This record gives sequence, structure tokens and C-alpha cells, in this order.
Amino acid sequence: MLTSMPTFVQVIEFVGTFAFAISGIRLASAKQFDWFGAYVVGLATAIGGGTIRDLLLDVTPFWMTNSIYMVCSALALLWVILFGKYLIHLNNTFFYFDSIGLALFTVVGIDKTLNAGFPMWVAIIMGTMTGAAGGVIRDVFINEIPLIFRKEIYAMACVAGGLAYCLCMQFDMSDTLIQIITGASVFIIRILSVKYKICLPTLKGNNV
Amino acid sequence: MLTSMPTFVQVIEFVGTFAFAISGIRLASAKQFDWFGAYVVGLATAIGGGTIRDLLLDVTPFWMTNSIYMVCSALALLWVILFGKYLIHLNNTFFYFDSIGLALFTVVGIDKTLNAGFPMWVAIIMGTMTGAAGGVIRDVFINEIPLIFRKEIYAMACVAGGLAYCLCMQFDMSDTLIQIITGASVFIIRILSVKYKICLPTLKGNNV
Amino acid sequence: MLTSMPTFVQVIEFVGTFAFAISGIRLASAKQFDWFGAYVVGLATAIGGGTIRDLLLDVTPFWMTNSIYMVCSALALLWVILFGKYLIHLNNTFFYFDSIGLALFTVVGIDKTLNAGFPMWVAIIMGTMTGAAGGVIRDVFINEIPLIFRKEIYAMACVAGGLAYCLCMQFDMSDTLIQIITGASVFIIRILSVKYKICLPTLKGNNV
Repeated sequence: MLTSMPTFVQVIEFVGTFAFAISGIRLASAKQFDWFGAYVVGLATAIGGGTIRDLLLDVTPFWMTNSIYMVCSALALLWVILFGKYLIHLNNTFFYFDSIGLALFTVVGIDKTLNAGFPMWVAIIMGTMTGAAGGVIRDVFINEIPLIFRKEIYAMACVAGGLAYCLCMQFDMSDTLIQIITGASVFIIRILSVKYKICLPTLKGNNV
Repeated sequence: MLTSMPTFVQVIEFVGTFAFAISGIRLASAKQFDWFGAYVVGLATAIGGGTIRDLLLDVTPFWMTNSIYMVCSALALLWVILFGKYLIHLNNTFFYFDSIGLALFTVVGIDKTLNAGFPMWVAIIMGTMTGAAGGVIRDVFINEIPLIFRKEIYAMACVAGGLAYCLCMQFDMSDTLIQIITGASVFIIRILSVKYKICLPTLKGNNV
Repeated sequence: MLTSMPTFVQVIEFVGTFAFAISGIRLASAKQFDWFGAYVVGLATAIGGGTIRDLLLDVTPFWMTNSIYMVCSALALLWVILFGKYLIHLNNTFFYFDSIGLALFTVVGIDKTLNAGFPMWVAIIMGTMTGAAGGVIRDVFINEIPLIFRKEIYAMACVAGGLAYCLCMQFDMSDTLIQIITGASVFIIRILSVKYKICLPTLKGNNV
């Protein structure tokens, strides 16, 4: 479905993969991982969600047919090695890149699942997994409780995007328009929830 | 094989899924997970084992064809949110529900594996995984050493149930009878081992 | 491809599986796992990498068609239970066994991936995963940061072996010769890097 505008989508896919990999590599470097470990964590953050999705859908994992994801993660590692100490000034930029990646990955996950013949509710789960499961694998690798289970609206932005997709399908919209609205929903909800510090309620552990 | 008594099996499957999800949600709430995180941990506890089994058997993961598991886990979350502080009085009830779930999941896992054409020893492994692997994923998500690797007879009850299944197959029993004997073996071994505090020996770390 | 010398390869496969399982069981016993937990960790260390590879290649996981891996891990557990306190004197022997396993698993992973029709760069990744991913699962189970992400040349020896394989294919060598050169590269790089304490650089966490 995304083939109507290959170059533009490829650019955001590269930007998103790069931003996801950077997030993994930075957290790995905070735990003194070596270059190999940092690369694997960065790669897992970038491609982990889509890999689980493809295993569940029983299709060939997307990164096994195109080496761009390996290259992109290697460039992210090189970037951190060379410019690591300036990265903190780019935090805001990477936050936007990461949100762009989250939006695109959600749309790709939903499309791929619907194309495989599954119903909408499965597609919403797969879209959310494509966007958010890589971060869970990253946090398991660095031996921390997954961030998205405790803080911030992250995966819920993907779910909201999925609901927007579902809603749009009720109207007679083109595929491209549905994808843009979905991606924009994910992006905007993610940005606003961080800006206004909107969180989900926490379960109180002492009661249960 | 279980289709001969659909309603009854569906009821225990719902009860088991609910009890497994509750166990995940309660442990997540002890670590201050938000509602989304608790839902994911509850869901992973309930469907994680069967998902790994289905990936290994190369069939569509069972929860992707029926949304009841998502709904059941959502109800478990709602229950903990609403009645969390009374849950401690129900510990005993949930222990029985969890054991019923363990018994059923083991039987389902064995049947599905044999139907896929694998030998009995693979079926025993898959039955054990269906029952016990969800709890391992749960403990990885909350960043604890998996409970079933250190304490109590849990997975071993599934293995024993698998051996009972294997034994029953030597006699000319109906499928339903074999399933009932298998499930009862898992349930009784689990209950008795907790009541009489029967554990497996522990390896002594200082020696190796 | 490896069928030309079945007995010899089967012997090293058994030795490698045994050594991998021992490494998992010993780390599990340091954390007071019970026998079941130690067995699962040992088994996961031995077969985890190949299982992930087979799931990604969409073929039946190798251990589901031959029970030797279950038996071999059970023997490893028995060995640790019986001779645990003498194991420390065999550290050097097990280091060589483990390196032999690493070399063989890498070759098997590369061959299987190429036979499935994937390009060389995917085969190198799969060879590395076959050799090294089991250790990552082991460390997740015992709730530690994966060792291969922080210390020693381990997975990089597999990558180097993969590059050697790739290089050999440019010349007109027999399959067996390519496999021997690849395995020897992995083995020698692993041994030398430990002997001369060669490590990859570490990322400095305070900068990023």
C-alpha cells in the first residue's frame, strides 16, 4: 500500500530506524556495552518489533530481504562513537525522529497485517507491536523493566492510531489518506502526551 | 479433540486465562506498572506459552483467530483496578483457578502438538510450555528471575501430566478420558505439592 | 552439506551441546535454581540460538525432530549434580569444548541459511545467532546483562568465521574445506582473544 510514494516513505523509514537504533545504542552505552553489544541492542530496538510481527504473521522477517536495516544501525553506532558527546544537545531532534519512526512503524504494521488477511483488531495489536516491542526487547537486553510499561504514553499512541485507522476505514478514503491520518494521530498523541506530561494511571501495588 | 464438550471446555479456558492474567497483573502492579503495562504483562502470562508453542509448531497463534483472550485479560485488569484491595482474600480461589488453567493448557498443548504430527516427547514439551512459559515471560517483563526455575512444582506437574497422557495412550481409552486423566494429574500434583511443600532439589552454587 | 562425515560431526555436535548446556546449568546453579530450572537454562543455552534461527528461516526447529539434544542436556545436568564440585578443575577443558561448539554451530547456521536460499549476509547473521543467541537467552533467564554484550570476543568470532566462509566461496573450494576453514577461524579467534585478553572497545556511557 505504501508503494505509491516509495522515496518519501523510504526516507522516513530510514530516519525512524536510525532514531530507534540510536535509542538502543545510547542505553547500551550507559551500561558499558562494547561495540558489538551496542550494535545488537540498537538493531533489536529498530527491527525487534517488526520481527515479532512477521513471525506471528508467518511471513519472512522484513530485514532478511533488505540489508538497509543492518547498514542503518551500523551508521547509528558510528554516529554515537564519533559524536556521542554532542548527542545530548540533539535530544529534542531525536525525540521527534523517534516519534516519526513510531508513527510510520505503526502504519506499516497495520497495513501488513490487514494485507495478510487478519481482522482489524489483530492489525491494531500488530501495529502497536511493530512500534513498541523493539523497546521492550532493548530493555530486557539491558536488564531493566521495560520503560513503556511504566512511563509515558508510547504504545497507547500506536493503539490510538490503530483506532483512527479503523475509524477512517468506515469512510470512503484512499489508502494513502488513511495512512497519513493514522501516522499523524500517533505522532501528535505522542508529542502532546510528553509535552503535557500525560500518563496512564498506575496500579497501586500495596493493595494487591 | 476437545470439541466434544465445547461449552464446559470454553468455561475452564476462560477461567484459566483470567487466573493467569490476574497473576501477571498483580505482579506488575507490585512494580508500579501503569494500566497498559499491567495489561500487557497479564496478557503475556495468559497467552505467552501458547504463542511460543504455535510459533514452534508453525501454526497461526491461537489468540489471533479469537479475540476472547484479549477481552478476558481486559476484564482481569478491570477486576484488579476495581477490586484490587480485596484480592488478597481470594488468594486461595485464584490458586485453584490457576491450577485449573495449568491443567487445561497442558492438555490443549499436548493435543495440538500430536495433531500436528509430532511425537509424544515433543508433545510433552509443548504441553509444559503452554502451561508454564507464560509465567517465564511475565517474570522477564517484571525483571525477576523466573519463579518456576527456583520454587515449587509447577512445570513438573505439566511434565507429569504429559507422562500420564503417554501412559493412557498405551491402553484403549477414549480421547476425552485421556484428557481428563491428564488434566487431573496436573491439577492434583500441583495442589498436593503446594499443600505439602514438595520441591525439587536445588543445585548448590558454591560447588560449581 | 555436513552429511559427508556424519559420525565425526555428530560427535562434535554432542560435545558442543554438552558444553553449552553445562555453561547454562552452572550459571543457574550459582543462582540456586532447582533441577528443573537448571535443566531449562542449560537446554535454552544449547538449543536457543538454533531455535531462533529456525523460526526466522521458517523451518521446523531442529531439536523437534531428534531427541538427542534433550538427552544431552539431561546428561549435562546429571554431570553437574554428580560431579559439580570437581567441575572447576575442568574449566579449561570446558572452555575448549565450548569453543568447539561455537565453531560448529556457526558453520551449521551458515549452511542451513544458504540452503534455505538466503544471501550470504543473512547467513553470517544466522551463523552468529546459532552460536551466540543461546547465551543471551541464558543470561536473560538468570536475570543478568548478557555477557557477550560486554566482555570478550565471542559473537565477533562467529562473524569473523562468516567472513572467512564468504571469502572461501570466492575460490573453488569444496564444501567440506570451506566448513573446516570457517570453523577453525571461529575456534582460533575465540581462543586467541581469550588468551591475549583482546576485547572490543566499550562505549563511554557518561558522554551519551
